[in-house]
Amino acid sequence: MALEEKGALYGRLASGEERYAALKDTLGTMSLIPVLNSERTRITAATREMLVDITGTSQEVVGKVDTFLKTHLPDPQLAPQRLHEAMRYAALNGGKRIRPLLAFGAGALTEAPEEALTVVSASLELIHAYSLVHDDLPCMDNDVLRRGQPTCHVQFGEAMALLAGDTLQSLAFQWLGEFPLLEDASRQLRMVQQLALASGSRGMGGGQAIDLESTGTTLSLPELEAMHLKKTGALIRTAILLGADCSQAPLPPEEQRSLVRFANALGLAFQVMDDILDTESDTATLGKTAGKDAAGQKATYVSIMGLAQAKALAADLLSTSCDALTAFGSRGRRLQELAHLVHNRRH
Amino acid sequence: MALEEKGALYGRLASGEERYAALKDTLGTMSLIPVLNSERTRITAATREMLVDITGTSQEVVGKVDTFLKTHLPDPQLAPQRLHEAMRYAALNGGKRIRPLLAFGAGALTEAPEEALTVVSASLELIHAYSLVHDDLPCMDNDVLRRGQPTCHVQFGEAMALLAGDTLQSLAFQWLGEFPLLEDASRQLRMVQQLALASGSRGMGGGQAIDLESTGTTLSLPELEAMHLKKTGALIRTAILLGADCSQAPLPPEEQRSLVRFANALGLAFQVMDDILDTESDTATLGKTAGKDAAGQKATYVSIMGLAQAKALAADLLSTSCDALTAFGSRGRRLQELAHLVHNRRH
Repeated sequence: MALEEKGALYGRLASGEERYAALKDTLGTMSLIPVLNSERTRITAATREMLVDITGTSQEVVGKVDTFLKTHLPDPQLAPQRLHEAMRYAALNGGKRIRPLLAFGAGALTEAPEEALTVVSASLELIHAYSLVHDDLPCMDNDVLRRGQPTCHVQFGEAMALLAGDTLQSLAFQWLGEFPLLEDASRQLRMVQQLALASGSRGMGGGQAIDLESTGTTLSLPELEAMHLKKTGALIRTAILLGADCSQAPLPPEEQRSLVRFANALGLAFQVMDDILDTESDTATLGKTAGKDAAGQKATYVSIMGLAQAKALAADLLSTSCDALTAFGSRGRRLQELAHLVHNRRH
Repeated sequence: MALEEKGALYGRLASGEERYAALKDTLGTMSLIPVLNSERTRITAATREMLVDITGTSQEVVGKVDTFLKTHLPDPQLAPQRLHEAMRYAALNGGKRIRPLLAFGAGALTEAPEEALTVVSASLELIHAYSLVHDDLPCMDNDVLRRGQPTCHVQFGEAMALLAGDTLQSLAFQWLGEFPLLEDASRQLRMVQQLALASGSRGMGGGQAIDLESTGTTLSLPELEAMHLKKTGALIRTAILLGADCSQAPLPPEEQRSLVRFANALGLAFQVMDDILDTESDTATLGKTAGKDAAGQKATYVSIMGLAQAKALAADLLSTSCDALTAFGSRGRRLQELAHLVHNRRH
C-alpha cells in the first residue's frame, strides 16, 4: 500500500474502530518480531554480531521490567476495574523497552543494583506508555494502531484512555517515592525531580506542544532539533542518567559529562531514526501507522533534509554517541551495543 | 433559568465556544465574590463570626500560595509559550485554594514552617488544577465554564489543554522532588508517594473512572460514598495529612489517627456540599455550570437521598470532623474554622 493511500485512509475514515478495522484488513497477520537478518535491514556483520550478542542480556532486562510491571500495576480485579485494565493494556502490550535497556546499560557504568534499575525502568516505561496513550487520542494524533493493537482509546473509549494516561503518570512517581532505591534519600528525591522535568513542559510534554503548534508550518532544522531534544530526547536522556544514578556511588563529574554527551546524541539519533522508519517502514513492521507524519504534514528530519541526509545525520549521531563512551572503556560496552541497536532498529 | 433549561442548553449547543458564549449571555456580569452575608446563605451568628475571623488568615495563605505559583509556574515568555500560558491559565484563575487552606490548617497542629507548607500547597493545587482541566474536556464532562471563565480547552484548544493538564501533574511532582522540605529526605519521598497515591487510580483518577462508568446507572449510597472518598476525598485528605507532615516532628500515632478521622469526614463533607451546591446554587455564584449533574444523570447525594437528607448528612459529617479535632485542643482551631467554611461555602 503506497504512502499516499495510507495517508488518505488515515484521514478518511470516521471512527477509531472503523479506522482500526480497515488498517487491520490491510495488514493481515502481523509479525512484530524484529527481523534482524532481513535483507531489508542494512546491518554490517560486526553490528549483527553485537545485536546477537546483546539479545540474551536484553531479554533478561525486558523480562525483569515486564515482571515488575505485571506485578505492580494495579490488579484488574480491583476497582476501578476498567481503568486498571486500560492502564495494564497501555503499559504491557509489548513495548520495545528501549528506555529500560538504556537505564540498565548506564547502570553497568556504576555497577548499579538491578533492583533499583528495575524500579526506575518501570517508572520510565509508565511515563512513556502514558505519553503514547495521550498522543494517540483523537484531539492529538488521532491514531488507531499502536504496537500492532488498537490504541487505548479505541479499546476503552476516550475518557477512560485519558484517565489511564493520567494515572499511569501518577503511578510512575508513586513508585519512585515508594521503593527505597538509594541510601541517600535526597538523591532519590532528585530522581523524582529529574523524571518530572523530563516529562513536563520543558521536556516531553513541551516537545509535544511544539510539535502540535508546528504542524502545517515550516520548521528550521534547529527548531526541529530543539523540539525533538524535548519530545523524545528528554526521556531517553533521563533513562540513561537515572540508570547511572541508581548506584550508591554516582559517576565522577568528568564521566558524568561524557555520559550527558552520549545521552544527548542518542536521544536525537532515536528521533532521526523514528522519522526515517516512518518513511521507510510499513505499518506491519512498525506496529503503528506508518507514513503518518507525511500525511499529517509534520516537519521531520526526512521532510527537511531528505532521506539520504537524514541517514547520514543518524550515522553521525551514532558516531558522536560512541565517541563519548570511550571515556568508560569496557564498562561502556552495553551502551555502545544499545546505540547500534537504536541505529539499526526497524520498529 | 430553570434547571431543565440549563440542562437542555448544556446538551444542545455544538461547540465549546458556542456553549460558552450562550452561557455568558445568560449570566450577564458575574460576581464571583462569595456573598457571605447574603440572606440566601443560612449561617448562624457563631459561624459567621468564625468566617470573619478566618478571613485575614485565609487571605494570607492564599496570597502566599498564589505568589509561589505565579513565581514558579513556567514563564509564558519561555517556549513552549502557548503551553505555559495554558498551564498558568488553569492554575492561576482564582481558585478557592481550599486544599492549601487545609494544609496550612493542619500544619498549625505541628507548627510546620510556612515555606514547606507553601510548596506542598502549590503542588496540591497543580494536581487539583490538572484534574479540572482534564475533567472539563469534551470526552469527559464537556464543560465550557470554570471559575467564571471559559474552560482551558475552550480557550486553548483540546490538545493544548490535554498537554497543560499532563504537564501540571508533572510539575507538582517536580516541586516535591526539588525543594528541600524536611531534614529527613525519606519522609519527603513518602510525601511524593502519598500525593501520587491520592492522584492515581486508587485515588482521584480512580474516582473519576468510577464516576464515568456509573453515569446513567444507579449507584447505592455506599457505592457513591466509595466513589467520592476517592474522587474528591483523596486529595482533600492528603492536603490535610501532608500539611501536618510538613513539620520536622510528625504527629504522635494517636493524634495522627484523630487527624485521619477528621480528614476522612471532611473529604466526604466537601463532596456532599458540592452536590448540594450543584442543585441549589446558580451558575453565576458557582463560577461553573450549575445543574450539570442532574442534566448528566449523575448519581449524587441529592439524587439518592433528597436535598433535606443530604443536608443532614453534611451536618453530621461536620460534627464528626469537629469531634475528631477535640484531641488537639486549641491547636485544632484553624481546622475547625475551615470545616465550618467548607460546610457553609456557596461556591
